[in-house]
Amino acid sequence: MPFIAKYMVYLSDTDAAGIVHFANYLRFVERAEEDFYRSMGLPKIYEFMPRIEAFIRYESPIRRGDSISVELSLEEARTRAVRYGFNIFNDSTGIRAAYGHVAAACVEMSEGTMRAIKCPREVIEAWTKVGGPT
Amino acid sequence: MPFIAKYMVYLSDTDAAGIVHFANYLRFVERAEEDFYRSMGLPKIYEFMPRIEAFIRYESPIRRGDSISVELSLEEARTRAVRYGFNIFNDSTGIRAAYGHVAAACVEMSEGTMRAIKCPREVIEAWTKVGGPT
Amino acid sequence: MPFIAKYMVYLSDTDAAGIVHFANYLRFVERAEEDFYRSMGLPKIYEFMPRIEAFIRYESPIRRGDSISVELSLEEARTRAVRYGFNIFNDSTGIRAAYGHVAAACVEMSEGTMRAIKCPREVIEAWTKVGGPT
Amino acid sequence: MPFIAKYMVYLSDTDAAGIVHFANYLRFVERAEEDFYRSMGLPKIYEFMPRIEAFIRYESPIRRGDSISVELSLEEARTRAVRYGFNIFNDSTGIRAAYGHVAAACVEMSEGTMRAIKCPREVIEAWTKVGGPT
Repeated sequence: MPFIAKYMVYLSDTDAAGIVHFANYLRFVERAEEDFYRSMGLPKIYEFMPRIEAFIRYESPIRRGDSISVELSLEEARTRAVRYGFNIFNDSTGIRAAYGHVAAACVEMSEGTMRAIKCPREVIEAWTKVGGPT
Repeated sequence: MPFIAKYMVYLSDTDAAGIVHFANYLRFVERAEEDFYRSMGLPKIYEFMPRIEAFIRYESPIRRGDSISVELSLEEARTRAVRYGFNIFNDSTGIRAAYGHVAAACVEMSEGTMRAIKCPREVIEAWTKVGGPT
Repeated sequence: MPFIAKYMVYLSDTDAAGIVHFANYLRFVERAEEDFYRSMGLPKIYEFMPRIEAFIRYESPIRRGDSISVELSLEEARTRAVRYGFNIFNDSTGIRAAYGHVAAACVEMSEGTMRAIKCPREVIEAWTKVGGPT
Repeated sequence: MPFIAKYMVYLSDTDAAGIVHFANYLRFVERAEEDFYRSMGLPKIYEFMPRIEAFIRYESPIRRGDSISVELSLEEARTRAVRYGFNIFNDSTGIRAAYGHVAAACVEMSEGTMRAIKCPREVIEAWTKVGGPT
Protein backbone atom coordinates (compact mmCIF):
# COMPACT_ATOMS: atom_id res chain seq x y z
CA MET A 1 0.00 0.00 0.00
CA PRO A 2 1.78 3.14 -1.20
CA PHE A 3 2.33 6.18 0.98
CA ILE A 4 0.12 9.07 -0.15
CA ALA A 5 0.55 12.77 0.61
CA LYS A 6 -1.74 15.54 -0.54
CA TYR A 7 -0.71 19.11 -1.39
CA MET A 8 -2.20 22.31 -2.72
CA VAL A 9 -0.56 24.02 -5.68
CA TYR A 10 0.23 27.72 -5.37
CA LEU A 11 1.20 30.51 -7.71
CA SER A 12 4.85 30.24 -6.67
CA ASP A 13 4.92 26.64 -7.97
CA THR A 14 4.04 27.77 -11.50
CA ASP A 15 5.85 29.46 -14.37
CA ALA A 16 4.90 31.80 -17.21
CA ALA A 17 3.57 28.87 -19.25
CA GLY A 18 0.69 28.94 -16.75
CA ILE A 19 1.47 25.53 -15.26
CA VAL A 20 3.65 24.04 -12.52
CA HIS A 21 7.31 24.41 -13.46
CA PHE A 22 8.77 21.03 -14.43
CA ALA A 23 11.51 21.13 -11.78
CA ASN A 24 8.93 21.74 -9.06
CA TYR A 25 7.41 18.30 -9.61
CA LEU A 26 10.55 16.96 -7.95
CA ARG A 27 9.99 19.27 -5.00
CA PHE A 28 6.53 17.77 -4.50
CA VAL A 29 8.04 14.29 -4.64
CA GLU A 30 10.68 15.22 -2.08
CA ARG A 31 8.05 16.76 0.20
CA ALA A 32 6.18 13.46 0.12
CA GLU A 33 9.42 11.63 0.93
CA GLU A 34 9.96 13.92 3.94
CA ASP A 35 6.36 13.41 5.05
CA PHE A 36 6.82 9.67 4.62
CA TYR A 37 9.88 9.52 6.89
CA ARG A 38 8.14 11.79 9.39
CA SER A 39 5.05 9.55 9.36
CA MET A 40 7.35 6.61 10.12
CA GLY A 41 8.92 8.44 13.07
CA LEU A 42 12.19 9.01 11.21
CA PRO A 43 12.36 12.78 10.66
CA LYS A 44 16.15 12.94 10.95
CA ILE A 45 16.99 10.12 8.55
CA TYR A 46 16.24 12.20 5.52
CA GLU A 47 19.22 14.53 6.00
CA PHE A 48 21.57 11.70 5.16
CA MET A 49 20.10 10.61 1.84
CA PRO A 50 21.59 12.52 -1.12
CA ARG A 51 19.96 11.88 -4.46
CA ILE A 52 21.64 9.49 -6.90
CA GLU A 53 19.12 9.61 -9.71
CA ALA A 54 15.77 11.03 -10.66
CA PHE A 55 13.52 10.16 -13.57
CA ILE A 56 10.23 11.79 -14.37
CA ARG A 57 7.70 11.40 -17.14
CA TYR A 58 5.28 14.30 -17.53
CA GLU A 59 1.76 13.33 -18.57
CA SER A 60 -0.50 16.31 -17.94
CA PRO A 61 -0.17 19.80 -16.51
CA ILE A 62 -0.88 20.96 -12.97
CA ARG A 63 -2.21 24.46 -12.38
CA ARG A 64 -2.36 26.91 -9.48
CA GLY A 65 -5.25 25.99 -7.22
CA ASP A 66 -5.16 22.31 -8.15
CA SER A 67 -4.76 19.76 -5.40
CA ILE A 68 -2.43 16.84 -5.97
CA SER A 69 -1.69 13.45 -4.45
CA VAL A 70 1.85 12.15 -4.44
CA GLU A 71 2.06 8.39 -4.10
CA LEU A 72 5.34 6.71 -3.14
CA SER A 73 6.18 3.01 -3.31
CA LEU A 74 9.37 1.03 -2.91
CA GLU A 75 11.09 -0.08 -6.10
CA GLU A 76 14.29 -1.48 -4.66
CA ALA A 77 16.02 -1.45 -1.29
CA ARG A 78 19.71 -2.02 -1.86
CA THR A 79 22.41 -2.18 0.81
CA ARG A 80 23.46 1.44 0.46
CA ALA A 81 20.56 3.02 -1.42
CA VAL A 82 16.80 3.07 -1.80
CA ARG A 83 14.93 3.57 -5.03
CA TYR A 84 11.28 4.50 -4.81
CA GLY A 85 8.69 5.08 -7.49
CA PHE A 86 6.22 7.92 -7.50
CA ASN A 87 2.95 8.89 -9.12
CA ILE A 88 1.62 12.44 -9.02
CA PHE A 89 -2.13 12.61 -9.49
CA ASN A 90 -3.91 15.87 -10.21
CA ASP A 91 -6.95 15.47 -7.97
CA SER A 92 -8.61 18.50 -9.56
CA THR A 93 -8.71 16.87 -12.99
CA GLY A 94 -8.64 13.20 -11.97
CA ILE A 95 -5.69 12.61 -14.30
CA ARG A 96 -2.19 11.40 -13.49
CA ALA A 97 0.21 14.31 -13.97
CA ALA A 98 3.53 12.46 -13.80
CA TYR A 99 5.33 9.34 -12.69
CA GLY A 100 8.94 8.36 -12.16
CA HIS A 101 11.47 7.29 -9.60
CA VAL A 102 14.12 8.67 -7.27
CA ALA A 103 17.16 6.82 -5.94
CA ALA A 104 18.84 8.08 -2.79
CA ALA A 105 21.97 6.93 -0.98
CA CYS A 106 22.50 6.21 2.68
CA VAL A 107 25.44 8.23 3.92
CA GLU A 108 27.05 9.42 7.09
CA MET A 109 28.52 12.86 7.66
CA SER A 110 31.97 12.72 9.19
CA GLU A 111 34.20 15.78 9.44
CA GLY A 112 32.21 17.62 6.81
CA THR A 113 32.33 14.92 4.15
CA MET A 114 29.77 12.27 3.27
CA ARG A 115 30.63 8.59 3.34
CA ALA A 116 28.38 5.83 1.91
CA ILE A 117 27.08 3.49 4.60
CA LYS A 118 24.68 0.57 4.85
CA CYS A 119 21.16 1.93 5.00
CA PRO A 120 19.88 1.99 8.61
CA ARG A 121 17.49 -0.85 9.36
CA GLU A 122 14.68 1.61 10.15
CA VAL A 123 14.85 3.03 6.63
CA ILE A 124 14.52 -0.39 5.04
CA GLU A 125 11.73 -1.36 7.42
CA ALA A 126 9.83 1.83 6.72
CA TRP A 127 9.92 1.29 2.96
CA THR A 128 9.04 -2.38 3.37
CA LYS A 129 5.83 -1.32 5.12
CA VAL A 130 4.96 0.79 2.10
CA GLY A 131 5.74 -2.01 -0.31
CA GLY A 132 5.83 -2.08 -4.06
CA PRO A 133 3.72 -0.29 -6.65
CA THR A 134 0.06 -1.25 -6.89
CA MET B 1 30.13 20.47 -30.78
CA PRO B 2 27.82 20.82 -27.78
CA PHE B 3 26.33 24.11 -26.67
CA ILE B 4 27.94 25.30 -23.43
CA ALA B 5 26.57 27.83 -20.96
CA LYS B 6 28.28 28.96 -17.77
CA TYR B 7 26.54 30.00 -14.54
CA MET B 8 27.42 31.04 -11.01
CA VAL B 9 25.78 29.21 -8.12
CA TYR B 10 24.14 31.31 -5.43
CA LEU B 11 22.82 30.75 -1.93
CA SER B 12 19.24 30.58 -3.19
CA ASP B 13 20.17 27.55 -5.33
CA THR B 14 21.19 25.52 -2.26
CA ASP B 15 19.39 23.74 0.56
CA ALA B 16 20.12 22.96 4.20
CA ALA B 17 22.31 20.02 3.20
CA GLY B 18 24.78 22.73 2.14
CA ILE B 19 24.64 21.88 -1.57
CA VAL B 20 22.54 22.74 -4.62
CA HIS B 21 19.03 21.35 -4.20
CA PHE B 22 18.52 18.39 -6.52
CA ALA B 23 15.54 19.93 -8.33
CA ASN B 24 17.57 23.05 -9.12
CA TYR B 25 19.90 21.09 -11.38
CA LEU B 26 16.96 20.96 -13.81
CA ARG B 27 16.63 24.72 -13.59
CA PHE B 28 20.25 25.09 -14.67
CA VAL B 29 19.61 22.72 -17.57
CA GLU B 30 16.55 24.68 -18.63
CA ARG B 31 18.45 27.96 -18.40
CA ALA B 32 21.03 26.51 -20.78
CA GLU B 33 18.23 25.42 -23.12
CA GLU B 34 16.82 28.95 -23.10
CA ASP B 35 20.29 30.42 -23.72
CA PHE B 36 20.76 27.90 -26.52
CA TYR B 37 17.57 28.96 -28.34
CA ARG B 38 18.44 32.60 -27.77
CA SER B 39 21.94 32.05 -29.18
CA MET B 40 20.30 30.54 -32.26
CA GLY B 41 18.02 33.55 -32.69
CA LEU B 42 14.95 31.59 -31.58
CA PRO B 43 13.98 33.17 -28.24
CA LYS B 44 10.26 32.63 -28.74
CA ILE B 45 10.38 28.97 -29.75
CA TYR B 46 11.02 27.85 -26.22
CA GLU B 47 7.57 28.83 -24.95
CA PHE B 48 6.00 26.07 -26.98
CA MET B 49 8.06 23.15 -25.76
CA PRO B 50 6.54 21.47 -22.69
CA ARG B 51 8.66 18.80 -21.05
CA ILE B 52 7.87 15.13 -21.77
CA GLU B 53 10.60 13.52 -19.71
CA ALA B 54 13.63 14.31 -17.61
CA PHE B 55 16.36 12.02 -16.35
CA ILE B 56 19.26 13.04 -14.18
CA ARG B 57 22.12 11.18 -12.57
CA TYR B 58 23.82 13.02 -9.73
CA GLU B 59 27.57 12.46 -9.47
CA SER B 60 28.99 15.13 -7.18
CA PRO B 61 27.68 18.11 -5.24
CA ILE B 62 27.69 21.77 -6.29
CA ARG B 63 28.08 24.46 -3.66
CA ARG B 64 27.32 28.16 -3.37
CA GLY B 65 30.06 30.14 -5.06
CA ASP B 66 30.93 27.35 -7.50
CA SER B 67 30.81 28.08 -11.20
CA ILE B 68 29.31 25.47 -13.49
CA SER B 69 29.18 24.66 -17.20
CA VAL B 70 26.06 23.15 -18.66
CA GLU B 71 26.68 21.30 -21.91
CA LEU B 72 23.80 20.39 -24.22
CA SER B 73 23.85 18.04 -27.18
CA LEU B 74 21.19 16.52 -29.41
CA GLU B 75 20.16 12.95 -28.63
CA GLU B 76 17.22 12.62 -30.98
CA ALA B 77 15.14 14.94 -33.14
CA ARG B 78 11.77 13.32 -33.70
CA THR B 79 8.91 14.76 -35.71
CA ARG B 80 7.09 16.21 -32.73
CA ALA B 81 9.74 16.24 -30.02
CA VAL B 82 13.40 16.84 -29.30
CA ARG B 83 15.49 14.95 -26.79
CA TYR B 84 18.78 16.47 -25.74
CA GLY B 85 21.45 15.22 -23.37
CA PHE B 86 23.20 17.36 -20.80
CA ASN B 87 26.31 17.33 -18.68
CA ILE B 88 26.77 19.67 -15.75
CA PHE B 89 30.40 20.25 -14.87
CA ASN B 90 31.46 21.86 -11.63
CA ASP B 91 34.22 24.16 -12.90
CA SER B 92 35.29 24.93 -9.34
CA THR B 93 36.18 21.30 -8.64
CA GLY B 94 36.85 20.10 -12.19
CA ILE B 95 34.42 17.22 -11.66
CA ARG B 96 31.20 16.40 -13.51
CA ALA B 97 28.29 17.04 -11.18
CA ALA B 98 25.50 15.40 -13.16
CA TYR B 99 24.34 14.18 -16.53
CA GLY B 100 21.03 13.22 -18.05
CA HIS B 101 18.52 14.11 -20.72
CA VAL B 102 15.37 16.12 -21.29
CA ALA B 103 12.70 15.47 -23.92
CA ALA B 104 10.41 18.32 -24.93
CA ALA B 105 7.44 18.42 -27.28
CA CYS B 106 6.66 20.84 -30.08
CA VAL B 107 3.21 22.27 -29.53
CA GLU B 108 0.99 25.09 -30.61
CA MET B 109 -1.27 27.10 -28.36
CA SER B 110 -4.75 27.48 -29.77
CA GLU B 111 -7.63 28.83 -27.74
CA GLY B 112 -5.81 28.17 -24.47
CA THR B 113 -5.01 24.52 -25.12
CA MET B 114 -1.83 22.94 -26.41
CA ARG B 115 -1.82 20.80 -29.52
CA ALA B 116 1.15 18.67 -30.64
CA ILE B 117 2.64 19.83 -33.93
CA LYS B 118 5.59 18.99 -36.13
CA CYS B 119 8.66 20.67 -34.71
CA PRO B 120 9.47 23.87 -36.61
CA ARG B 121 12.34 23.47 -39.05
CA GLU B 122 14.39 26.12 -37.19
CA VAL B 123 14.31 24.03 -34.02
CA ILE B 124 15.62 20.94 -35.78
CA GLU B 125 18.25 22.97 -37.61
CA ALA B 126 19.42 24.61 -34.39
CA TRP B 127 19.91 21.26 -32.67
CA THR B 128 21.58 19.79 -35.76
CA LYS B 129 24.22 22.52 -35.55
CA VAL B 130 24.93 21.47 -31.98
CA GLY B 131 25.10 17.81 -32.90
CA GLY B 132 25.47 14.74 -30.79
CA PRO B 133 27.41 14.12 -27.60
CA THR B 134 31.20 14.21 -27.79
CA MET C 1 -9.93 37.81 13.94
CA PRO C 2 -7.00 37.21 11.58
CA PHE C 3 -6.95 34.50 8.94
CA ILE C 4 -4.54 31.71 9.93
CA ALA C 5 -2.96 29.09 7.67
CA LYS C 6 -0.59 26.36 8.75
CA TYR C 7 2.24 24.88 6.69
CA MET C 8 5.07 22.39 7.03
CA VAL C 9 8.59 23.47 6.12
CA TYR C 10 10.55 21.25 3.76
CA LEU C 11 14.15 20.91 2.66
CA SER C 12 13.44 22.76 -0.58
CA ASP C 13 12.41 25.84 1.44
CA THR C 14 15.85 26.10 3.05
CA ASP C 15 19.31 27.24 1.96
CA ALA C 16 22.88 26.31 2.83
CA ALA C 17 22.73 28.45 5.98
CA GLY C 18 20.51 25.64 7.31
CA ILE C 19 17.38 27.79 7.58
CA VAL C 20 14.48 28.89 5.38
CA HIS C 21 15.74 31.16 2.62
CA PHE C 22 14.69 34.76 3.29
CA ALA C 23 12.81 35.12 0.00
CA ASN C 24 10.76 32.02 0.75
CA TYR C 25 9.07 33.74 3.70
CA LEU C 26 7.21 35.76 1.08
CA ARG C 27 6.12 32.55 -0.63
CA PHE C 28 4.57 31.37 2.64
CA VAL C 29 2.77 34.69 2.98
CA GLU C 30 1.45 34.46 -0.55
CA ARG C 31 0.31 30.89 0.02
CA ALA C 32 -1.69 32.11 2.99
CA GLU C 33 -3.17 34.88 0.84
CA GLU C 34 -4.23 32.32 -1.76
CA ASP C 35 -5.71 30.07 0.94
CA PHE C 36 -7.50 33.12 2.36
CA TYR C 37 -9.18 34.00 -0.94
CA ARG C 38 -10.01 30.33 -1.50
CA SER C 39 -11.56 30.10 1.99
CA MET C 40 -13.69 33.12 1.09
CA GLY C 41 -14.90 31.50 -2.13
CA LEU C 42 -12.79 33.81 -4.30
CA PRO C 43 -10.15 31.57 -5.87
CA LYS C 44 -9.98 33.51 -9.12
CA ILE C 45 -9.63 36.99 -7.63
CA TYR C 46 -6.03 36.45 -6.73
CA GLU C 47 -4.81 36.37 -10.31
CA PHE C 48 -5.56 40.01 -10.68
CA MET C 49 -3.65 41.39 -7.72
CA PRO C 50 -0.04 42.22 -8.60
CA ARG C 51 2.18 43.20 -5.69
CA ILE C 52 2.89 46.88 -5.05
CA GLU C 53 5.03 46.56 -1.98
CA ALA C 54 6.36 44.05 0.51
CA PHE C 55 8.04 44.61 3.85
CA ILE C 56 9.37 41.91 6.12
CA ARG C 57 11.19 41.94 9.44
CA TYR C 58 12.99 38.70 10.27
CA GLU C 59 13.00 37.77 13.95
CA SER C 60 14.03 34.14 14.25
CA PRO C 61 14.94 31.32 11.90
CA ILE C 62 12.70 28.54 10.57
CA ARG C 63 14.15 25.13 9.88
CA ARG C 64 13.21 22.07 7.81
CA GLY C 65 10.62 20.04 9.67
CA ASP C 66 9.24 23.04 11.56
CA SER C 67 5.55 23.83 11.28
CA ILE C 68 4.50 27.44 10.89
CA SER C 69 1.36 29.53 11.17
CA VAL C 70 0.88 32.48 8.86
CA GLU C 71 -1.57 35.04 10.20
CA LEU C 72 -3.06 37.67 7.88
CA SER C 73 -4.99 40.79 8.89
CA LEU C 74 -6.23 43.84 7.01
CA GLU C 75 -4.13 46.98 7.35
CA GLU C 76 -5.87 49.17 4.80
CA ALA C 77 -8.45 48.69 2.07
CA ARG C 78 -8.02 51.49 -0.47
CA THR C 79 -10.05 51.98 -3.62
CA ARG C 80 -7.59 50.25 -5.91
CA ALA C 81 -5.38 48.31 -3.51
CA VAL C 82 -5.35 46.26 -0.34
CA ARG C 83 -2.58 46.24 2.23
CA TYR C 84 -2.52 43.38 4.70
CA GLY C 85 -0.20 42.64 7.58
CA PHE C 86 1.26 39.25 8.37
CA ASN C 87 2.87 37.40 11.22
CA ILE C 88 4.74 34.15 10.72
CA PHE C 89 4.92 32.05 13.86
CA ASN C 90 7.26 29.10 14.18
CA ASP C 91 4.96 26.63 15.93
CA SER C 92 7.88 24.27 16.56
CA THR C 93 9.70 26.84 18.71
CA GLY C 94 6.75 28.95 19.84
CA ILE C 95 8.53 32.09 18.63
CA ARG C 96 7.46 34.60 15.99
CA ALA C 97 9.72 34.18 12.98
CA ALA C 98 8.78 37.33 11.03
CA TYR C 99 6.20 40.03 10.50
CA GLY C 100 5.50 42.57 7.80
CA HIS C 101 3.00 43.66 5.21
CA VAL C 102 2.13 43.24 1.55
CA ALA C 103 0.22 45.69 -0.63
CA ALA C 104 -1.48 44.41 -3.77
CA ALA C 105 -3.34 46.24 -6.53
CA CYS C 106 -6.70 45.45 -8.08
CA VAL C 107 -6.30 45.22 -11.83
CA GLU C 108 -8.04 43.96 -14.90
CA MET C 109 -6.38 42.18 -17.81
CA SER C 110 -7.44 43.58 -21.14
CA GLU C 111 -5.68 42.67 -24.37
CA GLY C 112 -2.64 41.40 -22.52
CA THR C 113 -2.04 44.50 -20.42
CA MET C 114 -3.07 45.23 -16.85
CA ARG C 115 -5.19 48.24 -15.97
CA ALA C 116 -5.82 49.45 -12.41
CA ILE C 117 -9.45 49.13 -11.36
CA LYS C 118 -11.55 49.63 -8.25
CA CYS C 119 -11.18 46.60 -6.03
CA PRO C 120 -14.15 44.25 -6.42
CA ARG C 121 -16.60 44.48 -3.53
CA GLU C 122 -16.04 40.79 -2.63
CA VAL C 123 -12.34 41.46 -2.04
CA ILE C 124 -13.06 44.31 0.36
CA GLU C 125 -15.76 42.31 2.10
CA ALA C 126 -13.49 39.31 2.52
CA TRP C 127 -10.77 41.39 4.15
CA THR C 128 -13.31 43.22 6.32
CA LYS C 129 -14.37 39.88 7.76
CA VAL C 130 -10.76 39.22 8.74
CA GLY C 131 -10.37 42.66 10.26
CA GLY C 132 -7.37 44.41 11.69
CA PRO C 133 -4.38 43.11 13.63
CA THR C 134 -4.98 41.74 17.12
CA MET D 1 29.32 54.67 -7.35
CA PRO D 2 26.89 51.79 -6.82
CA PHE D 3 27.79 48.16 -7.48
CA ILE D 4 25.98 46.88 -10.57
CA ALA D 5 25.34 43.26 -11.53
CA LYS D 6 23.54 42.09 -14.66
CA TYR D 7 21.39 38.96 -14.98
CA MET D 8 19.21 37.21 -17.52
CA VAL D 9 15.67 36.26 -16.54
CA TYR D 10 14.58 32.68 -17.18
CA LEU D 11 11.31 30.79 -17.23
CA SER D 12 11.96 29.38 -13.77
CA ASP D 13 12.00 32.93 -12.35
CA THR D 14 8.42 33.56 -13.49
CA ASP D 15 4.95 32.53 -12.36
CA ALA D 16 1.62 31.89 -14.04
CA ALA D 17 0.89 35.63 -14.15
CA GLY D 18 3.51 35.66 -16.92
CA ILE D 19 6.01 37.78 -14.98
CA VAL D 20 8.82 37.30 -12.46
CA HIS D 21 7.40 36.04 -9.18
CA PHE D 22 7.51 38.79 -6.56
CA ALA D 23 9.64 36.77 -4.11
CA ASN D 24 12.25 36.15 -6.80
CA TYR D 25 13.12 39.85 -6.94
CA LEU D 26 14.77 39.28 -3.56
CA ARG D 27 16.77 36.41 -5.01
CA PHE D 28 18.13 38.73 -7.69
CA VAL D 29 19.06 41.25 -5.00
CA GLU D 30 20.82 38.59 -2.95
CA ARG D 31 22.69 37.34 -6.02
CA ALA D 32 23.97 40.88 -6.54
CA GLU D 33 25.03 41.01 -2.88
CA GLU D 34 26.94 37.75 -3.29
CA ASP D 35 28.57 39.03 -6.49
CA PHE D 36 29.42 42.26 -4.67
CA TYR D 37 31.24 40.47 -1.84
CA ARG D 38 32.98 38.23 -4.34
CA SER D 39 34.08 41.25 -6.39
CA MET D 40 35.57 42.70 -3.19
CA GLY D 41 37.47 39.49 -2.49
CA LEU D 42 35.19 38.55 0.41
CA PRO D 43 33.33 35.45 -0.80
CA LYS D 44 33.13 33.88 2.66
CA ILE D 45 31.81 36.91 4.54
CA TYR D 46 28.34 36.51 3.15
CA GLU D 47 27.64 33.27 5.02
CA PHE D 48 27.55 35.17 8.28
CA MET D 49 25.01 37.82 7.40
CA PRO D 50 21.43 36.75 8.15
CA ARG D 51 18.73 39.10 6.94
CA ILE D 52 17.12 41.48 9.45
CA GLU D 53 14.73 43.27 7.15
CA ALA D 54 13.74 43.57 3.53
CA PHE D 55 11.59 46.18 1.83
CA ILE D 56 10.66 46.22 -1.83
CA ARG D 57 8.51 48.46 -3.96
CA TYR D 58 7.40 46.94 -7.25
CA GLU D 59 7.17 49.40 -10.15
CA SER D 60 6.98 47.38 -13.35
CA PRO D 61 7.03 43.74 -14.36
CA ILE D 62 10.00 41.68 -15.55
CA ARG D 63 9.48 38.91 -18.07
CA ARG D 64 11.34 35.80 -19.19
CA GLY D 65 14.08 36.77 -21.61
CA ASP D 66 14.50 40.26 -20.13
CA SER D 67 17.90 41.30 -18.90
CA ILE D 68 18.13 43.21 -15.65
CA SER D 69 20.65 45.32 -13.75
CA VAL D 70 20.70 45.18 -9.97
CA GLU D 71 22.31 48.23 -8.40
CA LEU D 72 23.43 48.16 -4.76
CA SER D 73 24.47 51.13 -2.62
CA LEU D 74 25.18 51.59 1.06
CA GLU D 75 22.39 53.10 3.13
CA GLU D 76 23.86 52.67 6.59
CA ALA D 77 26.80 50.79 8.12
CA ARG D 78 26.05 50.22 11.77
CA THR D 79 28.28 48.41 14.26
CA ARG D 80 26.56 45.07 13.93
CA ALA D 81 24.59 45.41 10.71
CA VAL D 82 24.64 46.82 7.19
CA ARG D 83 21.67 48.23 5.34
CA TYR D 84 21.97 48.62 1.61
CA GLY D 85 19.56 50.01 -0.95
CA PHE D 86 18.84 48.43 -4.29
CA ASN D 87 17.37 49.32 -7.64
CA ILE D 88 16.38 46.70 -10.18
CA PHE D 89 16.30 48.03 -13.72
CA ASN D 90 14.70 46.13 -16.56
CA ASP D 91 17.26 46.71 -19.29
CA SER D 92 14.91 45.24 -21.90
CA THR D 93 12.32 47.95 -21.31
CA GLY D 94 14.56 50.71 -19.93
CA ILE D 95 12.25 51.05 -16.92
CA ARG D 96 13.02 50.56 -13.22
CA ALA D 97 11.27 47.39 -12.06
CA ALA D 98 11.71 47.77 -8.30
CA TYR D 99 13.64 49.41 -5.51
CA GLY D 100 14.04 48.81 -1.81
CA HIS D 101 16.52 47.91 0.87
CA VAL D 102 17.90 44.94 2.78
CA ALA D 103 19.43 44.99 6.26
CA ALA D 104 21.73 42.14 7.27
CA ALA D 105 23.45 41.38 10.56
CA CYS D 106 27.06 40.47 11.25
CA VAL D 107 27.15 37.25 13.21
CA GLU D 108 29.50 34.50 14.21
CA MET D 109 28.65 30.81 14.30
CA SER D 110 29.75 29.18 17.52
CA GLU D 111 28.63 25.69 18.50
CA GLY D 112 25.77 25.76 16.03
CA THR D 113 24.22 29.03 17.17
CA MET D 114 24.62 32.51 15.78
CA ARG D 115 25.89 35.36 17.93
CA ALA D 116 25.79 39.03 16.88
CA ILE D 117 29.26 40.52 16.45
CA LYS D 118 30.79 43.77 15.29
CA CYS D 119 30.87 43.78 11.51
CA PRO D 120 34.33 42.87 10.20
CA ARG D 121 36.30 45.88 9.03
CA GLU D 122 36.50 44.44 5.46
CA VAL D 123 32.72 44.44 5.18
CA ILE D 124 32.46 48.10 6.16
CA GLU D 125 35.33 49.03 3.85
CA ALA D 126 33.78 47.18 0.95
CA TRP D 127 30.48 49.01 1.33
CA THR D 128 32.25 52.33 1.84
CA LYS D 129 33.88 51.90 -1.58
CA VAL D 130 30.45 51.50 -3.10
CA GLY D 131 29.07 54.50 -1.27
CA GLY D 132 25.61 55.92 -1.08
CA PRO D 133 22.83 56.07 -3.65
CA THR D 134 23.39 58.29 -6.66
